[in-house]
Amino acid sequence: MNVDDCKRVAAHNAADFVQPGMVVGLGTGSTAAFMIERLGERVAEGLDILAIPTSEESGRLARAAGIPLTSFADHQVLDIAIDGADEVERGTLHLIKGLGAALLREKIVAQASRRFVVIVDATKPVNQLGERAPVPVEVIPFGYEATANRLEKMGAGVIRPRRTLAGELLTTDNGNMILDCVFGPIQDVQALAAQIDGTVGVVEHGLFPNMATDVLVATEREVERWTP
Amino acid sequence: MNVDDCKRVAAHNAADFVQPGMVVGLGTGSTAAFMIERLGERVAEGLDILAIPTSEESGRLARAAGIPLTSFADHQVLDIAIDGADEVERGTLHLIKGLGAALLREKIVAQASRRFVVIVDATKPVNQLGERAPVPVEVIPFGYEATANRLEKMGAGVIRPRRTLAGELLTTDNGNMILDCVFGPIQDVQALAAQIDGTVGVVEHGLFPNMATDVLVATEREVERWTP
Repeated sequence: MNVDDCKRVAAHNAADFVQPGMVVGLGTGSTAAFMIERLGERVAEGLDILAIPTSEESGRLARAAGIPLTSFADHQVLDIAIDGADEVERGTLHLIKGLGAALLREKIVAQASRRFVVIVDATKPVNQLGERAPVPVEVIPFGYEATANRLEKMGAGVIRPRRTLAGELLTTDNGNMILDCVFGPIQDVQALAAQIDGTVGVVEHGLFPNMATDVLVATEREVERWTP
Repeated sequence: MNVDDCKRVAAHNAADFVQPGMVVGLGTGSTAAFMIERLGERVAEGLDILAIPTSEESGRLARAAGIPLTSFADHQVLDIAIDGADEVERGTLHLIKGLGAALLREKIVAQASRRFVVIVDATKPVNQLGERAPVPVEVIPFGYEATANRLEKMGAGVIRPRRTLAGELLTTDNGNMILDCVFGPIQDVQALAAQIDGTVGVVEHGLFPNMATDVLVATEREVERWTP
């Protein structure tokens, strides 16, 4: 199986966690897209659910797949959220997310869900978070240069403002910017998360410590299920 | 003197802290407006400064007053910022700010400034922060209902989404919402600030612990200067 096949298998596996009557958070990104597609098939077969998407993009996919949508105005607690991740730390299941630029809504949805199922291919697990992926940090455009200076003092060796394919500064669904911060392997994920949370100008960041309840890892042969 | 006269006297006093060549952060609100007016007079008399405003409103006032503006792209460190506050705690000089809905940019500017001068009339000092003022919390509109639930669990007895005079939900300059959270007198301002900072969906809040370097309090007779 190639990587896309692996992602699809894990995503279908995750979609099967969804039970009738549930309110479901829909993640963003290529793996989540396979999950939304599969959930749409189950809805067409009669599965009765409501969903809250984590991005404009996932909302479009869900509507196209025929999944009925709801919002936080009607449901402040979700039964389950399913999403991908950019890195998963073995053992702790701490995550880095946000290479898809939807980290803020993804975190709001994950935080509001009783169960948070993460689907990844076999390239995503690492021994220490930050080994490969930068930490995306969503910041207010106003004064982002000063905010970047403060992140640098916390140990971010390289800080790249995220750009679009056309080379322009990317704007998130919430009107903010993303700074991709290369910290390298992170010794204490919760401490760094708290430090970034306390930084003026930061809206949110891509460190998700202690949030995943299940991680489904698709290898070439099987789907492993990890729990904390 | 009435309250407006007191505010004007303190504001003029603060404007005199500004020296030639400085980069100055301009606060938002009725007291800051008097300070901008006075700085404009000093610029007309030859004072050479650059300023970064904390709101669209203050930017308009500064342009009207003839104060040359700059931005964080050119200056990541400011020499001084001058702003009002809604409550000042005696002794610690911890502040509550944000009843004017500009708390986020005000905090970014204050944080980036070497000196942060706060100007208030005599109705603003309190023995314990939160005695009278609610804590304004700027939140992402997406999922704000779930964010409000989390603030309630931290002890906010009443949470009011800020509205415009026309009764509609207010949108900040950054496209977010403000939740006015009534905590009552706050025992540990820094601990509560860290807890709110760590709350998913929160962009920033109106607690400013350990930020003011000078507080100018205008009473009917004099301007007192407090330092931490």
